[in-house]
Amino acid sequence: MRTRAAVALEAGKPLEIMEVNLEGPRAGEVLVEIKATGLCHTDEFTRSGDDPEGIFPAILGHEGAGVVIEVGDGVTSLEPGDHVIPLYTPECRECEYCLNPKTNLCQSIRSTQGQGLLPDGSTRFSMLDGTPIHHYMGCSTFANHTVVPEIALAKVRKDAPFDKICYIGCGVTTGIGAVINTAKVEIGSRAIVFGLGGIGLNVIQGLRMAGADQIVGVDLNDGKATMAKRFGMTDFVNPSKVEGDIVAHLVELTRGGADYTFDATGNVKVMRAALEAAHKGWGESIIIGVAPAGAEISTRPFQLVTGRVWRGTAFGGASGRTDVPKIVDWYMDGKIEIDPMITHKLPLEEINHGFDLMHEGKSIRAVVEF
Amino acid sequence: MRTRAAVALEAGKPLEIMEVNLEGPRAGEVLVEIKATGLCHTDEFTRSGDDPEGIFPAILGHEGAGVVIEVGDGVTSLEPGDHVIPLYTPECRECEYCLNPKTNLCQSIRSTQGQGLLPDGSTRFSMLDGTPIHHYMGCSTFANHTVVPEIALAKVRKDAPFDKICYIGCGVTTGIGAVINTAKVEIGSRAIVFGLGGIGLNVIQGLRMAGADQIVGVDLNDGKATMAKRFGMTDFVNPSKVEGDIVAHLVELTRGGADYTFDATGNVKVMRAALEAAHKGWGESIIIGVAPAGAEISTRPFQLVTGRVWRGTAFGGASGRTDVPKIVDWYMDGKIEIDPMITHKLPLEEINHGFDLMHEGKSIRAVVEF
Ligand SMILES: [Zn+2]
Ligand SMILES: [Zn+2]
Ligand SMILES: [Zn+2]
Ligand SMILES: [Zn+2]
Repeated sequence: MRTRAAVALEAGKPLEIMEVNLEGPRAGEVLVEIKATGLCHTDEFTRSGDDPEGIFPAILGHEGAGVVIEVGDGVTSLEPGDHVIPLYTPECRECEYCLNPKTNLCQSIRSTQGQGLLPDGSTRFSMLDGTPIHHYMGCSTFANHTVVPEIALAKVRKDAPFDKICYIGCGVTTGIGAVINTAKVEIGSRAIVFGLGGIGLNVIQGLRMAGADQIVGVDLNDGKATMAKRFGMTDFVNPSKVEGDIVAHLVELTRGGADYTFDATGNVKVMRAALEAAHKGWGESIIIGVAPAGAEISTRPFQLVTGRVWRGTAFGGASGRTDVPKIVDWYMDGKIEIDPMITHKLPLEEINHGFDLMHEGKSIRAVVEF
Repeated sequence: MRTRAAVALEAGKPLEIMEVNLEGPRAGEVLVEIKATGLCHTDEFTRSGDDPEGIFPAILGHEGAGVVIEVGDGVTSLEPGDHVIPLYTPECRECEYCLNPKTNLCQSIRSTQGQGLLPDGSTRFSMLDGTPIHHYMGCSTFANHTVVPEIALAKVRKDAPFDKICYIGCGVTTGIGAVINTAKVEIGSRAIVFGLGGIGLNVIQGLRMAGADQIVGVDLNDGKATMAKRFGMTDFVNPSKVEGDIVAHLVELTRGGADYTFDATGNVKVMRAALEAAHKGWGESIIIGVAPAGAEISTRPFQLVTGRVWRGTAFGGASGRTDVPKIVDWYMDGKIEIDPMITHKLPLEEINHGFDLMHEGKSIRAVVEF
């Protein structure tokens, strides 16, 4: 079949909207009609050429929602008409990682996914001239139709709006999951969130849901405070307006340091401040943001010896097929909000404008609707 | 009263054996006759002048065992004749830290202890000319008699030999506790221990007690392997004899990385290797060693985002009054060994020779008996 997609032909170039060939699903694969997809910083990291592991040409996008059109041989958990969210972290429920409750990093299809291929080592997408087009993070949601392994699809309820729940495919789950699955924040905790973009806002609403008593938001842009308050932030700190050491300021504000701190900036200096603003004895700091290639975190080991814990999280520690449908339920039940974070909707033709909005800091999430 | 002590008069000088004045215990304090004390790297760190927070003159020593001679007003948990181990990490059971099960870092007397003083802000030791002599880590076990706060004394059974259980006051508890309290190692785990000195050996026997399946020891000195095997090491690696990357070698040896790794070297480069040799997804690395002043650990945040956890431990996460008596019982019951680690016994007069043995790598533990 043919479908319409935004194709990343070369690093650093705008995406090109074009017709592409799409082969049907092979064994264990599923053909999905994408109804909506968010634009994430990770897509831009690859598109821009900053990602040293970027592969081109590729169809980017990893934050989608859609409908199953056709299933390949052996697919048992999905059927045409099911509503699904593609998962860049799959859940095979069989590998050593899936069987270990301490991690969500299913490794069953990791090597081919990292090469922009489906698990059998080939692509389903190609140019009209036959040139193969790589998949991206196993999802490639910047296409109206895509083929995804069965183990990388979360089946969700049919009454949930695609243009909102697509965001659960990445940012919402990453932020809320960092609180619930990785940090396991307890009721009454004090927390600090560094970076009040889309991920940070979702960390904040995760903290509110977890019953945190104090939720400090830190951002260089005062304009972020209003939305963050709406999602549950109790205190706002703009480091550029703090005299003296920001860590000391935050430690005082949280009466000795926070029980949990979260970096949602990707800046390694901020990651250090986040660790050091955690409470002596028991404070845990969770790295969510993706740092530039080669950047390193550092601190004095004394910070850890005196009881702080340094962790990271990927996809919020969520096992996607199990956890994503629950988060969709939370949204539909009003336990979490997504609507105010979807600040822009665009047709596929305007997808490059969506990245402009991201760079200008004007969007929390821009969503492309097909 | 007068007692005999090894006094650190100045940074970098040998200790001097001399008679000193010792005032009796004030409210909440206890006079202890020290029967035996180990010599620890931390004492040497301060004696040598490397410790930027070292205070002189002082009576060092923090790894002792002895008998209660007299108790001050208000002391209820101890009486003359009780056998005790002084605790450089006290356990008041009342402060915010003691009441939080996530930490053992009782803060109730921290500020005075750090200044070489007892909780009322004064010293009990003085020179015969009246010059005050500072306490050290709240213990000062390099004296035949010392005064210690009640909350910094673990009461232990009377049939345990002082010249062995003194080591439970620091190294034994630090190593075993890092496994049991901090890492919470599960049966069947794979582990790597960097540095096979006294702490490393105790980590190894902690791992054996915890039921670890694989216990890899790493040391530049082949001579350390025999003793480490005796304590439970299953595999020995000398990094100077490994071709190529030591981390890759260890990851392969442990089939993907260790569930738990422990740094007992104090070298920040080794701390990084320890983290990176932990298993993707769930491996935890625990820093035990004390790094040189100003040294920093670093790694790429990707190491944490892909599931590794970086922790530290102080006094093995043990709450001393509660846990130390249990460890003494384990020793008396034969669950752990201490005797082979006490390689040298010296009278107080030869204490400086004990530090020479430490520098020459000839001792695991030298113990001074009074
Ligand atoms: Zn994303
Ligand atoms: Zn799996
Ligand atoms: Zn020690
Ligand atoms: Zn306490």
